[in-house]
Amino acid sequence: MSLAASMRGFPEWLPDGQLVEQSVLASLRSTFELHGFGPLDTRAVETLEALTGKGETDKEIYVLRRLQASPDEADLGLGLHFDLTVPFARYVRENAGRLAFPFRRYQIQKCWRGERPQEGRYREFLQADIDVVDRGSLPAHLEWEVPLVAAEALGRLHLPPVRVQVNNRKIVQGFFEGLGYTGEMAAALRALDKFAKIGPDGVAAELEAAGVAPRQVGACLRLGAVSSTDLSFVDEVRAIGVSGGLLDEGLAELSAVMEAGRAVEPGLFVADLRITRGLDYYTGTVYETLMEGYESLGSVCSGGRYDDLVGAAGEPYPGVGISIGVSRILGPLLSRGGLRASRLVPSCVLVAVADEEHRPDSEAVAAGLRRRLVPTEVSPTSAKYGKQIRYAERRGIPFVWFPGGGDRPDQVRDIRSGEQLEADASSWLPPEEDRLVTVAAAP
Amino acid sequence: MSLAASMRGFPEWLPDGQLVEQSVLASLRSTFELHGFGPLDTRAVETLEALTGKGETDKEIYVLRRLQASPDEADLGLGLHFDLTVPFARYVRENAGRLAFPFRRYQIQKCWRGERPQEGRYREFLQADIDVVDRGSLPAHLEWEVPLVAAEALGRLHLPPVRVQVNNRKIVQGFFEGLGYTGEMAAALRALDKFAKIGPDGVAAELEAAGVAPRQVGACLRLGAVSSTDLSFVDEVRAIGVSGGLLDEGLAELSAVMEAGRAVEPGLFVADLRITRGLDYYTGTVYETLMEGYESLGSVCSGGRYDDLVGAAGEPYPGVGISIGVSRILGPLLSRGGLRASRLVPSCVLVAVADEEHRPDSEAVAAGLRRRLVPTEVSPTSAKYGKQIRYAERRGIPFVWFPGGGDRPDQVRDIRSGEQLEADASSWLPPEEDRLVTVAAAP
Repeated sequence: MSLAASMRGFPEWLPDGQLVEQSVLASLRSTFELHGFGPLDTRAVETLEALTGKGETDKEIYVLRRLQASPDEADLGLGLHFDLTVPFARYVRENAGRLAFPFRRYQIQKCWRGERPQEGRYREFLQADIDVVDRGSLPAHLEWEVPLVAAEALGRLHLPPVRVQVNNRKIVQGFFEGLGYTGEMAAALRALDKFAKIGPDGVAAELEAAGVAPRQVGACLRLGAVSSTDLSFVDEVRAIGVSGGLLDEGLAELSAVMEAGRAVEPGLFVADLRITRGLDYYTGTVYETLMEGYESLGSVCSGGRYDDLVGAAGEPYPGVGISIGVSRILGPLLSRGGLRASRLVPSCVLVAVADEEHRPDSEAVAAGLRRRLVPTEVSPTSAKYGKQIRYAERRGIPFVWFPGGGDRPDQVRDIRSGEQLEADASSWLPPEEDRLVTVAAAP
Repeated sequence: MSLAASMRGFPEWLPDGQLVEQSVLASLRSTFELHGFGPLDTRAVETLEALTGKGETDKEIYVLRRLQASPDEADLGLGLHFDLTVPFARYVRENAGRLAFPFRRYQIQKCWRGERPQEGRYREFLQADIDVVDRGSLPAHLEWEVPLVAAEALGRLHLPPVRVQVNNRKIVQGFFEGLGYTGEMAAALRALDKFAKIGPDGVAAELEAAGVAPRQVGACLRLGAVSSTDLSFVDEVRAIGVSGGLLDEGLAELSAVMEAGRAVEPGLFVADLRITRGLDYYTGTVYETLMEGYESLGSVCSGGRYDDLVGAAGEPYPGVGISIGVSRILGPLLSRGGLRASRLVPSCVLVAVADEEHRPDSEAVAAGLRRRLVPTEVSPTSAKYGKQIRYAERRGIPFVWFPGGGDRPDQVRDIRSGEQLEADASSWLPPEEDRLVTVAAAP
């Protein structure tokens, strides 16, 4: 159990969970940087204008007021961001003249939504986003590069396996157009996206409510049922008997993404034609990601391609982005014990203290170990050695160092095996796998 | 210039500044963990009750309201934290039964204050805190260990030199008691603390306003003027002719801190008897830190010892903590160009693409380099090589890789020297100093 006492919807972890989270974030940063994504951190607040300009979440925003504001004083016009896309778009718009395009960035920050908390869904949560945005046009290969980087990042976290469900909005939109549908496209897309939530009957009802002719609902349900890990989805869609230019374009784009994904790892990408994503700025390829055994959480990593993120005058800023729901993943895994840190503190070595007069000797040993990048604590007290060893045991610190003195050499004990050996403070190193905290899936 | 366009008081950095900040945070985490401090991240919001319980900053808190709340709906009773001490105290109180004491943690998070922005002072800012808190009693050696860790952490950041001004509230309080002062102690301490802001005349006036007898103001000013990098402060205080048990205790404690500091680095600690810190939970040793050439920023790293942080029933929770003002340091340094990243992106290598058909060859080279932990991008386009090289140049990417083909071997060019050599994609490594972005003081 890594869950600390906390306010509902604002999860906090006990020290072992904190170490797991820190290790996950370090791993994500490292993978993103290996792929040339640079860090970005934006302010937590945005203007309400920016926050409510897009999408469906405006009802869940936390707005700010000064505590000492008089009752009739207006709000500050600022709210906490509910995702990292709105701040990224605003940052690109404000600094476009000083950025090099295509601009690749990762951004790992907390977001806030006033929604009802449930497993994996919090009012305060960490997201880890990568986006590549360009000016004018955007190369197609980013549509597989970006989800492959995200999948690689997830693959390093000792999580259950994931698969990325991919679709292309052009297919779905082209399909509805081919059917002669003239209702509101966003409503039709949203209806198709709800398979997992409300089942085919529910989707059928929503499609009809969105204005799809009853005799065409069956074709839509057939489209939504198409799913393949290879290119067979193309024939399955063709077999429904709807056609059109936009549909063809979408099928070609999705085929390219699926082929590239299969070349890296067959089965990682699944063409899933019901996926459309709720947010209306996506214009082509879209992604959602399910984690094995945790499907009830919904997507843990979602995104897509947008043809103009920034929406400024002049050239468009097309891009591809994907967002990993770090808290959505870690919350359930930590509370179900699915990930464990190898110890409760960073320290690899506890240097014992013979008596307070000799504390500087222990400090000197610790300083030497730290110079060799071994995390080291000096015992806070000079209590009996048995008590100092228990201090290490309680925290899972694997080694206790006993400074010698006079003719007695230093000794180091592995408290897991009880083995105690002479050691030289100027050169000793722990086994590399013990030096830093490691995180592993619980057995 | 690393400063991005932004809202006043909410600083954001351009990509080079983002890399500097990220590198600073990684360095701080690493130093803290080498000393056995574990990570802690708490929620951004606290109850107003927790936020307004202590100290002087209650007027600057941002409180939250739901955007869709009706006008007569009450606020949520939550505000953004203005420091990391209040959340830490609350976390320890809530989880005391599940933590191992002494509990050592570091915490690097944003804080928010609605105050007037000025250089180094923002409405949103990053703090990096370390604290050690124990149950019952606390060993004295933590009073030098904690500021020494902070100084070591600062010392790794390529900043101008810092010195830590140390004092002990017992000295000042004992001094006032020895004078027979019976007014409000907090007011007297606050007055003495204002030397840097309002000078001796201003302090004199404030002392009188706090009820210090006019004939004793001179003695107080003499105390406030005492400053030494060795133990001579003791004699200087004695020479003023005030005495008492609490004063003696404070002088002994400060002497121990100063001696330990001198053993590590003479001149790093300065005994400065005017320093008292505004917050009233400190009970003994207190710290402030000035950065050379940036003294006008005030303290960039402050803290002290408190005898009971948590304030729960039962045993007290004494501790020592210190807080590095990351934004206060980085804001002025970045906007004055005092710190520079070695390039604008993490990538060490750009793999060129001959034509789109051969993109997979370039991807394969990149994957190999990344396996050897070399941050690598593949060129986004297969434009002429000159254009691909300019892509690398604009970002400061030091190496461009040209895949061979057929009998032609791969080649790699150092774009700084123009030197281009044959290279083997399965084994080549850049010089270690080029692999990751480095940060240095600007010349």
